[in-house]
Amino acid sequence: MSAADVTAILLSLGVLLASARILGELARRVGQPAILGEILAGLLLGPTVLGKFAPEVGAYLFAPSGSPGIFRSGLNQLSVTLFLLVAGMEIDLSAVWRQGRTAIAVSLSGIVIPFAIGFLIALYVPGALDNERGIAQHHFALFFATALSISALPVIAKTLMDINLFRTDLGVIVISAAICEDLIGWIVFAIVLGLIGKDQGHTLPIGETITWVVVFAVGMLTIGRGLFHRVLPWVQAYASWPGGVLGFVLTVTLFSAAFTEWIGVHAIFGAFMAGVALGDSPHLRERTRTTIEQFVSFFFAPLFFASLALKVDFIANFDLALVALVLVVACIGKVIGCGLGARLAGSPWRQSWAIGCAMNSRGAMEIILGTLALQYGVIGERLFVALVIMALVTSMLSGPLIQRILKRKKQRRFADHLGAKAFVARLRSADRFEAIRELVVAAAAQAGIDVEAATMAVSDRERQMATGLSNGIAVPHGRLAGLQAPVAADELARAGIDFDSPDGAPARIIILLLTPVDDDGAQLDLLADIARAFADPNMRELVMQVTSYTEFRALLKAERAA
Amino acid sequence: MSAADVTAILLSLGVLLASARILGELARRVGQPAILGEILAGLLLGPTVLGKFAPEVGAYLFAPSGSPGIFRSGLNQLSVTLFLLVAGMEIDLSAVWRQGRTAIAVSLSGIVIPFAIGFLIALYVPGALDNERGIAQHHFALFFATALSISALPVIAKTLMDINLFRTDLGVIVISAAICEDLIGWIVFAIVLGLIGKDQGHTLPIGETITWVVVFAVGMLTIGRGLFHRVLPWVQAYASWPGGVLGFVLTVTLFSAAFTEWIGVHAIFGAFMAGVALGDSPHLRERTRTTIEQFVSFFFAPLFFASLALKVDFIANFDLALVALVLVVACIGKVIGCGLGARLAGSPWRQSWAIGCAMNSRGAMEIILGTLALQYGVIGERLFVALVIMALVTSMLSGPLIQRILKRKKQRRFADHLGAKAFVARLRSADRFEAIRELVVAAAAQAGIDVEAATMAVSDRERQMATGLSNGIAVPHGRLAGLQAPVAADELARAGIDFDSPDGAPARIIILLLTPVDDDGAQLDLLADIARAFADPNMRELVMQVTSYTEFRALLKAERAA
Repeated sequence: MSAADVTAILLSLGVLLASARILGELARRVGQPAILGEILAGLLLGPTVLGKFAPEVGAYLFAPSGSPGIFRSGLNQLSVTLFLLVAGMEIDLSAVWRQGRTAIAVSLSGIVIPFAIGFLIALYVPGALDNERGIAQHHFALFFATALSISALPVIAKTLMDINLFRTDLGVIVISAAICEDLIGWIVFAIVLGLIGKDQGHTLPIGETITWVVVFAVGMLTIGRGLFHRVLPWVQAYASWPGGVLGFVLTVTLFSAAFTEWIGVHAIFGAFMAGVALGDSPHLRERTRTTIEQFVSFFFAPLFFASLALKVDFIANFDLALVALVLVVACIGKVIGCGLGARLAGSPWRQSWAIGCAMNSRGAMEIILGTLALQYGVIGERLFVALVIMALVTSMLSGPLIQRILKRKKQRRFADHLGAKAFVARLRSADRFEAIRELVVAAAAQAGIDVEAATMAVSDRERQMATGLSNGIAVPHGRLAGLQAPVAADELARAGIDFDSPDGAPARIIILLLTPVDDDGAQLDLLADIARAFADPNMRELVMQVTSYTEFRALLKAERAA
Repeated sequence: MSAADVTAILLSLGVLLASARILGELARRVGQPAILGEILAGLLLGPTVLGKFAPEVGAYLFAPSGSPGIFRSGLNQLSVTLFLLVAGMEIDLSAVWRQGRTAIAVSLSGIVIPFAIGFLIALYVPGALDNERGIAQHHFALFFATALSISALPVIAKTLMDINLFRTDLGVIVISAAICEDLIGWIVFAIVLGLIGKDQGHTLPIGETITWVVVFAVGMLTIGRGLFHRVLPWVQAYASWPGGVLGFVLTVTLFSAAFTEWIGVHAIFGAFMAGVALGDSPHLRERTRTTIEQFVSFFFAPLFFASLALKVDFIANFDLALVALVLVVACIGKVIGCGLGARLAGSPWRQSWAIGCAMNSRGAMEIILGTLALQYGVIGERLFVALVIMALVTSMLSGPLIQRILKRKKQRRFADHLGAKAFVARLRSADRFEAIRELVVAAAAQAGIDVEAATMAVSDRERQMATGLSNGIAVPHGRLAGLQAPVAADELARAGIDFDSPDGAPARIIILLLTPVDDDGAQLDLLADIARAFADPNMRELVMQVTSYTEFRALLKAERAA
């Protein structure tokens, strides 16, 4: 590999990673999944945009041929393989058994109904979908049916967390059902890939491929799972830590992936099953999982997702009728399938529809499936574009739909209402009423409130009952007429100010909360969030060393993620 | 990329990773650095062994041509780039300033003297080294001089930790000097690469390359460092955690690496400088460093080091005279250079020689330098083999030599004396003297001691003064005549046994220590190690859930690493 090749490779990886990250962050900022931004990055860098306006730059960075192109293609294979390892590790089989009937009903009905709809449309509505590549129509129908049945556990889990439903009964049912669906979906897809591979002259007879898929899946879930569970503590005890375990997990994954690639289904199926079998063992420590998950999620995955749109022109291949058809059929099949399953298992109607909407996210999984299908020549670029759009739209719709159906709100964070101007790193006041005025002035700089009225409201409240909590935190607060949204202000008082707290400690972290008069929940939600944020003594220590608003936000975020 | 290519890639990566890990662990087991085992893995899988006995297997797995070969070659570039990022992140510039005079004297003298010796030998002793590739003799001499001057911070740090010198004055001087040497060494090597690249028709004029190297290095250490220090908290505050920071670090690294590759020195120089500039900021959190470091150390690095010997036949290219010459010149230059520097800066003679021996480790850095030189056509395979062997031998010699000079011993761990048979997960006894007998019986199963004599010795000691420590730990102990090495036995008593501890808590973790009569230090060292191991309340909780010896060892190791 020449120096020019190495330069091109490093530059293209840098550009992909940076743009995927930036657009991923922007997507999150507007409440959308990061993957949307990552795919958009590829869209901008691929033939859709960059290829049109600066084709020579695009050709230099992302040429599909030559050594850099071959390397990137291999790296994509490795990336998606490791991504599926992580997806597999998130599968907690015991959760499915614990939930039992409802989860299984939701997942089975959520697979069978979309599968049937997809299969029948692809087979019996000629011209609805175009089988551009001319593969056997019933194989094409099988693929399309599978594409409609798949769901995306990581996106679903993230959506439920965002709207604070993750730990509820509904959340547990949805997660268990999604686990079950993922597992069945990938096994079915592996078999479909085997069937299609046969059309393209793969070496193993199809009967053997299917037998191997089933033997491998069952073996991994029983013998493999038991074996890893026994071997992991042994590796941890006798090999270096954490290198031994990391090496073991990655080696098992690479071998499983090589095996499934060899039997004619894609490598990702082996990686996924390895992830399921390994991830199920409590002996796989949280630290090891985190290391793998973070590196894969923030290095390999963005590279893979940003590369998706590098080869396909999304504008030229955008077919509105096809996109609409795929989207409508996918939503109807999944929402009705899962919703009916939940209803039959005894959930009330409203909750059943919420479950259906939650299961409708296709996220990364659908996109990976589409990429493989494109690569194996099962579908053309137009259907690929339609599947990607369907995956993104279903993922984006899921959260808002559940919120509407269940009338839930997003979890409130006091930090979301705390602007840079309302943060005071060094308090000047000496007593609590002075401190309250200082905080109100800071809050006014942020949100334009009436300083006198606010000071009076908060001071009155403070006189009725002191707002010092334990452990050096005080939360003076008040309600203001005419305020549109809550406002927070934060001060750090190194010496401490007496807020008459139950434990007698002077307050060193003082947070002012001003909430609209008519928003009942806001005050309580935000107070609870503050208590949670500073529950850890270590966190309280670190906060006192902060010297700027930016550092304060960074700390809050890092501790929350920890 | 075809399915067969993907299978071959995944299989070869799996084989490389697994064998690198297993041999790395074996190397550690016999007290050697893991990299020795990793390189050995490549030796076994490459032309040296596998290529001789099963050439068709070797050709299938590790063919240098074709798509899998191109991919592996690209992955090696990426791996070594990321490895240098981690090496750079370990560089703590402020440590150099804090140590000041001695560190700078050691490092400068430790560069200048070996450099001079290497340069003169290569230039004026014709035939000593063979310039097989026929590049300009003074460029070849410059390379060889640099190869002798380089040192390997990670190996040096590890050696010092192993012999418990890391936190001593001597340790701090050595680390600071090694940091300084690494920094200067890589800048010099970058310039040498530029000079040599010119011979091979690289596009930039050499003056420009050298200017760029200096501007880039100085810029990274000043502007870059300041900029990252300001930007990091901003990224942490406004981007998702930890994805934002991880993405930022990796993107900066890829761009720096692409830039230095473009100016005609290798990508790793850019990655190294990016690591130095980023790693110096306290805003780069420990968690982020750990994630990057672990994934790189246990995925990318083993793949790279195991790949080294895949292309070279180490037996055919082994030239005893050349190996001996390189080894002797390298050791003399470095030990005398650094030793003299330390002596001149005021260290006593004995300590100065210890510093010289500590700085003599070449480890991974020399091997990477040799690989690049081989790849750029600066050296032939015989000199490459000699450099690799020199790097490994100097790394292996360093620890034992320092121990001999300073008469230091390795840190003792009680777990090293605790065998599987001497571990009792459920204590049956009801009082402490019964418990002592039960422990002695367990220890006897392990080491063949006289149960009656040992029970009496330990019980007598216990009667003189109870051995219960605070927090539910008891350490009954005794000295036995005729014992060769310490023996430990461990019991977990869920209900607790009264060992008359100062805090009145019953002992739940009971560890028996039997030490030889004539080994004064052993008892105290091991007692201190036990106290340290169970200092964390969380650890004591986890220990009580352990059900087997293997789990116990795993826990001890994981907690120690945490």
